[in-house]
Amino acid sequence: MTDLVLTTFDWVPKMVRGVVRDLRLRWALEEAELPYRVESVPFRDRGAEHFAHQPFGQVPWLTDGDQSIFETGAILLHLGGLSAKLMPTDARRRSESVEWMFAALNSVEMASLPWTMFKFMRMKGDTPEGKWFDSFVTLRLQRMEPVLAKGEWLAGTFSVADILMADVLRVVDRFEGLADYPACRAYVARATARPAFTKAHADQMAHFARGDAANPT
Amino acid sequence: MTDLVLTTFDWVPKMVRGVVRDLRLRWALEEAELPYRVESVPFRDRGAEHFAHQPFGQVPWLTDGDQSIFETGAILLHLGGLSAKLMPTDARRRSESVEWMFAALNSVEMASLPWTMFKFMRMKGDTPEGKWFDSFVTLRLQRMEPVLAKGEWLAGTFSVADILMADVLRVVDRFEGLADYPACRAYVARATARPAFTKAHADQMAHFARGDAANPT
Repeated sequence: MTDLVLTTFDWVPKMVRGVVRDLRLRWALEEAELPYRVESVPFRDRGAEHFAHQPFGQVPWLTDGDQSIFETGAILLHLGGLSAKLMPTDARRRSESVEWMFAALNSVEMASLPWTMFKFMRMKGDTPEGKWFDSFVTLRLQRMEPVLAKGEWLAGTFSVADILMADVLRVVDRFEGLADYPACRAYVARATARPAFTKAHADQMAHFARGDAANPT
Repeated sequence: MTDLVLTTFDWVPKMVRGVVRDLRLRWALEEAELPYRVESVPFRDRGAEHFAHQPFGQVPWLTDGDQSIFETGAILLHLGGLSAKLMPTDARRRSESVEWMFAALNSVEMASLPWTMFKFMRMKGDTPEGKWFDSFVTLRLQRMEPVLAKGEWLAGTFSVADILMADVLRVVDRFEGLADYPACRAYVARATARPAFTKAHADQMAHFARGDAANPT
């Protein structure tokens, strides 16, 4: 029996609720029906113990017994090893799932995260850097479109690769970035319609709302 | 016996030689002393077969027998499984190596790659987006500095995590981005002084130079 503990912030500002990365772990844990607890660390006062678990002072991290793991990608790879619901057992399919995990994080999110941050902060985007990111995101979406039109999930069956890719593209969709990419948009809709996503999202929203009393704005 | 084939472009413009990602794989293969061949695909005319191996039309990819793998991170994870010279065999150290691989690609390179691209294209950086990236890179380097001051390599012994992190930071160093981070700079110097890096770098430079005749500029 595993003893899985997911650590996230006690509270975050309302505008980022629903996109904090503990969502990706909650989603995986719900998909696999693995029992887990959620613990909190202060958002406003990050101590030495926090940095010992997560060197960038971010969240989430996961402890599995006496093992503490940071980086969402590394944690999802670990969880993938615990459940066939998160990663195919067939060697070729498993390799595809790992490829698409890295693709989501290093090829697509490297373009999409700054792009969505710029939108989020209402930057106009009419600068050389802003335009470069428009092209970068377009380049990636143009290639993801035929991939996602070809099949329901990236590694044949639903896997941690889809949790990462769908969560990355979901935020692009929020800023209308998928308007010209119907297969990407349908994929995001398909992934976020899964009961495990719905529960993970609702649980994150409720968790941070419970922190409001102790964190006056 | 493995049959490893690394595929990269036949040629690239001079200004990007030395930073094409096949370097990360050459470096790993040299460290592990694994036998491998290098094959080329056209830089200028990327066909359907290229996209079948690498959905973004980029390089490198690796074939290991009948298995074709894309995404440098996924390939390095695969190679890590083939040699203890690339990934510690101790479970805790191995987990640290995986964490730092993801940290290099999703936490550090997400900030550093666009930052170096902006420098490379001589953008002035005095825009909201340019300034946001200055802060993003600073945030990451401030956290990497104490980590890299603590030990020689990220997972105790040299591993694929160091190939990724050092190659990511090396490019920042090229644009004087490590001036205030002596431990980061010493780490880059330590990593790139390894004979396997020197050979990988020289081999990449020679490979692309051989493509000059067939690719007039």
